[in-house]
Amino acid sequence: MTFLRNIKLTIEYDGSCYRGWQTQRLGIKTVQKTIEDTLEKILCEKVKLIASGRTDSGVHALGQVANFKTNSSIPKYKLLYALNSLLPKDIVVKKVEDVDMDFHSRFSAISKIYRYTILNSKIRSPFLNKRAFFYPYPLDINLMRREAKKLLGRHNFLAFQNSDKVKRDSIRRIKKIRILKEGNLIHIDIEADGFVYGMVRNIVGVLLQIGRKKPINIEELLKSKIKPSGYFKVPAEGLYLVKVNY
Amino acid sequence: MTFLRNIKLTIEYDGSCYRGWQTQRLGIKTVQKTIEDTLEKILCEKVKLIASGRTDSGVHALGQVANFKTNSSIPKYKLLYALNSLLPKDIVVKKVEDVDMDFHSRFSAISKIYRYTILNSKIRSPFLNKRAFFYPYPLDINLMRREAKKLLGRHNFLAFQNSDKVKRDSIRRIKKIRILKEGNLIHIDIEADGFVYGMVRNIVGVLLQIGRKKPINIEELLKSKIKPSGYFKVPAEGLYLVKVNY
Repeated sequence: MTFLRNIKLTIEYDGSCYRGWQTQRLGIKTVQKTIEDTLEKILCEKVKLIASGRTDSGVHALGQVANFKTNSSIPKYKLLYALNSLLPKDIVVKKVEDVDMDFHSRFSAISKIYRYTILNSKIRSPFLNKRAFFYPYPLDINLMRREAKKLLGRHNFLAFQNSDKVKRDSIRRIKKIRILKEGNLIHIDIEADGFVYGMVRNIVGVLLQIGRKKPINIEELLKSKIKPSGYFKVPAEGLYLVKVNY
Repeated sequence: MTFLRNIKLTIEYDGSCYRGWQTQRLGIKTVQKTIEDTLEKILCEKVKLIASGRTDSGVHALGQVANFKTNSSIPKYKLLYALNSLLPKDIVVKKVEDVDMDFHSRFSAISKIYRYTILNSKIRSPFLNKRAFFYPYPLDINLMRREAKKLLGRHNFLAFQNSDKVKRDSIRRIKKIRILKEGNLIHIDIEADGFVYGMVRNIVGVLLQIGRKKPINIEELLKSKIKPSGYFKVPAEGLYLVKVNY
């Protein structure tokens, strides 16, 4: 079937109540399925959403991007309004754009930015429950910043990849890492041309160990290409897909 | 029974999943009941929590205060730790203090500060769902600020009281009103020596109408002592009990 339009959606969601982005078997609530079902109601046709990438169960997004092809002539502002009226309140479509027919949310992406947010305080916050990782230990942020720099550039990130889903190609390029302190929140922002499975959460886990002055050598980890045992992967609740660059 | 200790708790909670503060009939989940049950588990005795005031269903607190009397000799730090380990993650006890035996969370209070948070943007935020009132209309904040000043001081707030719970004494003194803009959030902070039922939400409703240039005269409203029909009371989700001053 040939389509006349390719529509790009920029989506924000609180992933707490979803089993991740990707549509799974019947009865599993995912972000993709929820939006696809809503689009079907609006457009009276089945659509297939292509996202920049999956997000895991409980992971949030400030700027997930997904596109779909359609022959509907619905104006963009009407689609935006209809989507946000019908979607549950933990998913919001921020932008609707017509894009070139060859735009592909995943393959056209140049880089992605993820943020991991840590509540570094002695006491939890009820308002950050499922929105940040509560980590009450003292951290040497400057040490974390210095060591994080060693991750910059092109590396084989096999040592930072979840072993259950190892792909052959684990080479990625990290363009930026920033560690920001905002009150008792710590944000770790990572921009890369791509991410191997589990990469952000494994990097943050290692940086937290470094912040607690555990003797971990990032250069050696990268070289070893082996995910060490007793690894500390941080939970999904602090992770946000911030932006996809095209 | 005579008690040896009077313990003051400072409590933060996300009220989204609770039917307000006050213990109700069996099976209704309230903040008070949840904390009382947890205290009973820790202290092996029934306790009666006295709060600075009830909060309605869905209302949040950053600094609710409640006290209870006990003969337990549990150290404060242990009680704090045990409470936060056992309480659900949407309730956090921030502070445990021993106070004079005659301290009473409600009667000893000099003033209370409430905050009402409005998301004033064209698009919702999934992360502010149940945490702020989504109000997408343009508002004249400076006009709201000017008019809000007329509420300062001692007045009969009958016109700002929910009619279903009218008390004889509706005279209160508003000490401060501040309207802050923070990105697309608007916070309306009100400090008063006390609040009649529904007062903050009714005031905010009126201020929003004023912000939309509806011809409402606050001085006349106060004088009339009559809650006008077609009144606009904003929902609970934007309301936070910020602090109780003693």
